[in-house]
Amino acid sequence: MFQARRFKHCPTCGHAVEYRVPADDNRERAMCASCGGIHYENPINVVGTLPVWGDGADGQVLLCKRAIEPRYGLWTLPAGFLEIGETAAQGAQRETDEEAGAQIELHDLYCLLNVVKVGQIHLFYRATLLSPEFNPGPETLEARLFHEHEVPWDEIAFRTVRETLKRFFEDRRLGRAYALHTADIA
Amino acid sequence: MFQARRFKHCPTCGHAVEYRVPADDNRERAMCASCGGIHYENPINVVGTLPVWGDGADGQVLLCKRAIEPRYGLWTLPAGFLEIGETAAQGAQRETDEEAGAQIELHDLYCLLNVVKVGQIHLFYRATLLSPEFNPGPETLEARLFHEHEVPWDEIAFRTVRETLKRFFEDRRLGRAYALHTADIA
Repeated sequence: MFQARRFKHCPTCGHAVEYRVPADDNRERAMCASCGGIHYENPINVVGTLPVWGDGADGQVLLCKRAIEPRYGLWTLPAGFLEIGETAAQGAQRETDEEAGAQIELHDLYCLLNVVKVGQIHLFYRATLLSPEFNPGPETLEARLFHEHEVPWDEIAFRTVRETLKRFFEDRRLGRAYALHTADIA
Repeated sequence: MFQARRFKHCPTCGHAVEYRVPADDNRERAMCASCGGIHYENPINVVGTLPVWGDGADGQVLLCKRAIEPRYGLWTLPAGFLEIGETAAQGAQRETDEEAGAQIELHDLYCLLNVVKVGQIHLFYRATLLSPEFNPGPETLEARLFHEHEVPWDEIAFRTVRETLKRFFEDRRLGRAYALHTADIA
């Protein structure tokens, strides 16, 4: 979860830190009077996919029912925190494998959504499912396909997932090319 | 700079941490045996702009000569770390103001570049300069406009800046729409 002030102690030497504005800066940072360290906090990235099985208006989207908090029991697109050592696309593919056990062909980045309140950017890639068989991991109660009219809109876990799904169905209905959508989630 | 192992001490209680794989995880994390805290490290975002003055093949791009390390004295597009509390677009606009004192109209996201080796994603937005007058901040020795044939390719500070500029001039030469480019920087 988002914490504007993550540091109480210096991660380098363990001394208590103070939030002050460094000489060459304009924001408060966690500063250590003992070792001189300055420690920054920055937004992080959540990466995921919008996996589709089948073509045209009949194509179904893959959703995962969460087996973990937050939002236990609600439905999400496969997604999670980007890790050190991977590209955004690799992270999205890994999360799809871990949460749904789904085999996909990844396409272009489809949504970039700023969630300023929690210090996150959510990146969703379109993907084509290579099989309708899934093998959900421990974070998922159930992974299944939904036609547009079946999507449980009132049981979607995250606003960014809802926004991504809405944009996809709208683009598909209107026959629009799937260009990048960017939006800010209040 | 990138540190795969940023934590020596627990930022919550100051106790020494150990890198171990938590029970419900598959990667080593900084774990505190004293307070039970688990501390994650994730890639962070650099945001910037590609500001253009004038139209067509005569349009000039704005570059800033760095007054700070790393890459002191080399040329960059205005860019810097995304901060908590702002969207990617807001961060890109802020950096353009801080580093160049340039007034711009921001356009769409143009490049998303994974720099896995340093744990970063670089996001560049296209922008139109509203004036050719600049007011560089303390991180910039000089801000000036370059025609394509004037760009100092051997004195560009960062590979992601070079890649963004190359793609822009190529799209412009070929009369292509400025769609999103994504690439991985080795």
